[in-house]
Amino acid sequence: MNAFQWTLDARDGNARAGTFTTPHGVLKTPVFAPVGTQATVKSLTPAQVEELGAQMVLANTYHLFLRPGEALIAELGGLHEFMRWNKPILTDSGGFQVFSLTDTRKIDEDGVTFKSHIDGSMKRLSPEISIQIQEKLGADIIMAFDECAVPTDYEYSRLAMRRTHSWARRCLDAKRRDDQALFGIVQGGVFSDLRAESAREISEMGFPGHAIGGLSVGESKADMYCTITEVNRILPEDKPRYLMGVGTPEDLIEGVRRGVDIFDCVLPTRLARHNSAMTMRGRLNLMNAGFARDERPIDPDCGCYTCRQFSRAYLRHLVNAKEMLAATLLSIHNLYTLVHLTEQMRQAIVEGNFEQFAQNSLAQLGNKE
Amino acid sequence: MNAFQWTLDARDGNARAGTFTTPHGVLKTPVFAPVGTQATVKSLTPAQVEELGAQMVLANTYHLFLRPGEALIAELGGLHEFMRWNKPILTDSGGFQVFSLTDTRKIDEDGVTFKSHIDGSMKRLSPEISIQIQEKLGADIIMAFDECAVPTDYEYSRLAMRRTHSWARRCLDAKRRDDQALFGIVQGGVFSDLRAESAREISEMGFPGHAIGGLSVGESKADMYCTITEVNRILPEDKPRYLMGVGTPEDLIEGVRRGVDIFDCVLPTRLARHNSAMTMRGRLNLMNAGFARDERPIDPDCGCYTCRQFSRAYLRHLVNAKEMLAATLLSIHNLYTLVHLTEQMRQAIVEGNFEQFAQNSLAQLGNKE
Repeated sequence: MNAFQWTLDARDGNARAGTFTTPHGVLKTPVFAPVGTQATVKSLTPAQVEELGAQMVLANTYHLFLRPGEALIAELGGLHEFMRWNKPILTDSGGFQVFSLTDTRKIDEDGVTFKSHIDGSMKRLSPEISIQIQEKLGADIIMAFDECAVPTDYEYSRLAMRRTHSWARRCLDAKRRDDQALFGIVQGGVFSDLRAESAREISEMGFPGHAIGGLSVGESKADMYCTITEVNRILPEDKPRYLMGVGTPEDLIEGVRRGVDIFDCVLPTRLARHNSAMTMRGRLNLMNAGFARDERPIDPDCGCYTCRQFSRAYLRHLVNAKEMLAATLLSIHNLYTLVHLTEQMRQAIVEGNFEQFAQNSLAQLGNKE
Repeated sequence: MNAFQWTLDARDGNARAGTFTTPHGVLKTPVFAPVGTQATVKSLTPAQVEELGAQMVLANTYHLFLRPGEALIAELGGLHEFMRWNKPILTDSGGFQVFSLTDTRKIDEDGVTFKSHIDGSMKRLSPEISIQIQEKLGADIIMAFDECAVPTDYEYSRLAMRRTHSWARRCLDAKRRDDQALFGIVQGGVFSDLRAESAREISEMGFPGHAIGGLSVGESKADMYCTITEVNRILPEDKPRYLMGVGTPEDLIEGVRRGVDIFDCVLPTRLARHNSAMTMRGRLNLMNAGFARDERPIDPDCGCYTCRQFSRAYLRHLVNAKEMLAATLLSIHNLYTLVHLTEQMRQAIVEGNFEQFAQNSLAQLGNKE
């Protein structure tokens, strides 16, 4: 019995429209998953996240391990029940966050010891511990514990990649639940030879899905897109591909164009909390006094609750008055923008005109207001 | 032509169930109005405010006068259109806020000069200016510009009351729009003779509704309830009565028991932002570590979105992790609690068992967890 199934519904060039079946429902890809770091998509109720069209949310193992703890979440019925999200959930492995704590973590071959950012206590994550935590959280898709290196440091990237491969095998060995799909992660920085080696090794391990990690962390766009192309040339067609932590409209289009199926990113909700609206014509900063009397919605072409209801002038007032509703309404808009973009890309792929859609959208994105 | 109509649907003792018709729909009383100080009920979308059952919201003239300014709101179609609330709105006069600025305001017979808390500039409000601002904002119910004194200072209360009466007449003279109902406000602190004098004078001026101001500002509960009783003995039966700024479950019950029809208060949303849940069995502080593993909703008898979906353990996690969703979910719950209480009181009045309902509810409120 396999709870997971990947079906390729259509292809157009390298772009794919697929269906991934999980215990909590089906993902129609390409799909963008809003990030709910601490078991909440910041400032939104699950009802609002569902209403804007999200099919899946991501939660962070690092954060939930530290607070409230995976044992408590398991005791309360798991993450779906805890946060009341009944569709698919993906948890990361905690690796990315732990390796970001550059000054307060120590790596060894077995795992990582680090200082909690909450209470300063020493904690430990390893491939086995990460899988145990993720099994207690109970997401549908869980991730291998990997090491994300500085992407432009060759020697470090090589060592981190090797460690990532060894840890990936240990994650497979540690995994017990068969109602969770464990995805392997390709590392290797911006170096073609390392990425090719990593894509080959990870592909051979038999994961039901693959992720491209370590991108959108400071490298150039050209390096990022090139790396995606090279990795996806090697990753098998018959498994879903997840580009981790990537979430601008441009990057989603360029990712899908290169065969990516799944995306997540904190950017839309983070920008929202910094008064910035993402649109398919570029970003608007709602602090701008120029919007004070602007009766138009953020984006006249957008169908989200925020754009159907509110003027830029009202949003500018909320931002100016430091009202929490600003973050909520901008989060709804920004997430809808990316979710709707993935829906449009899926349709374009099915209809066989993805390249036209991509070129038009990218051209429009270049025309900032 | 009169846009406003008050019908008494039922009486039970002094408690009343009425219907007040406004240009933006009908209020079924008793009614509790959530406060949207800056043209937003803090942390909630209008859709959420509507879903929890609110019939009317209150907005603050003082805040909107300073930011974004009544001219801008008028230019954008008025407050209903600006904040996208299509049901009745009530604006206060700005008086209460201005008189609270004890160190930075100067009162004369004509009005008040004060320092803006936003940019320190000097501003002025008077009966005429307040009405002009409220006419530009365009609420359904607008309030006379009154002076709220320290309620236990007799001499000040007397002077403030006299000024309130003179200003009430000027507000009536200044009013131009006939699609707004201007309510007069009874003042007089906790002094029976002043309150009686004020209730008589204000009643004689021909307002379509009356408010009791200057309560819940530091006086004892006994003084507050006694004052309500005395004032409502004099205020005419055939006009709605609004008790300003009052909003605990106990005070709503005691108010309705004494013939009050309309309430507003910042308390439910303010408590929510301070992690506190109002229930008909007392308050819960969700910071409490005792809730860490508590699978129950805030109130098992409550039908709000928060209680239908989330455990105390999840809310405690959100509070602990300083997530904005905590304020949203607690605001929904607290507002629902008061709105639902007014609905239950209305039903009890219609069914002729209000006193029983009041006594049971007050007894239950005494039994804190």
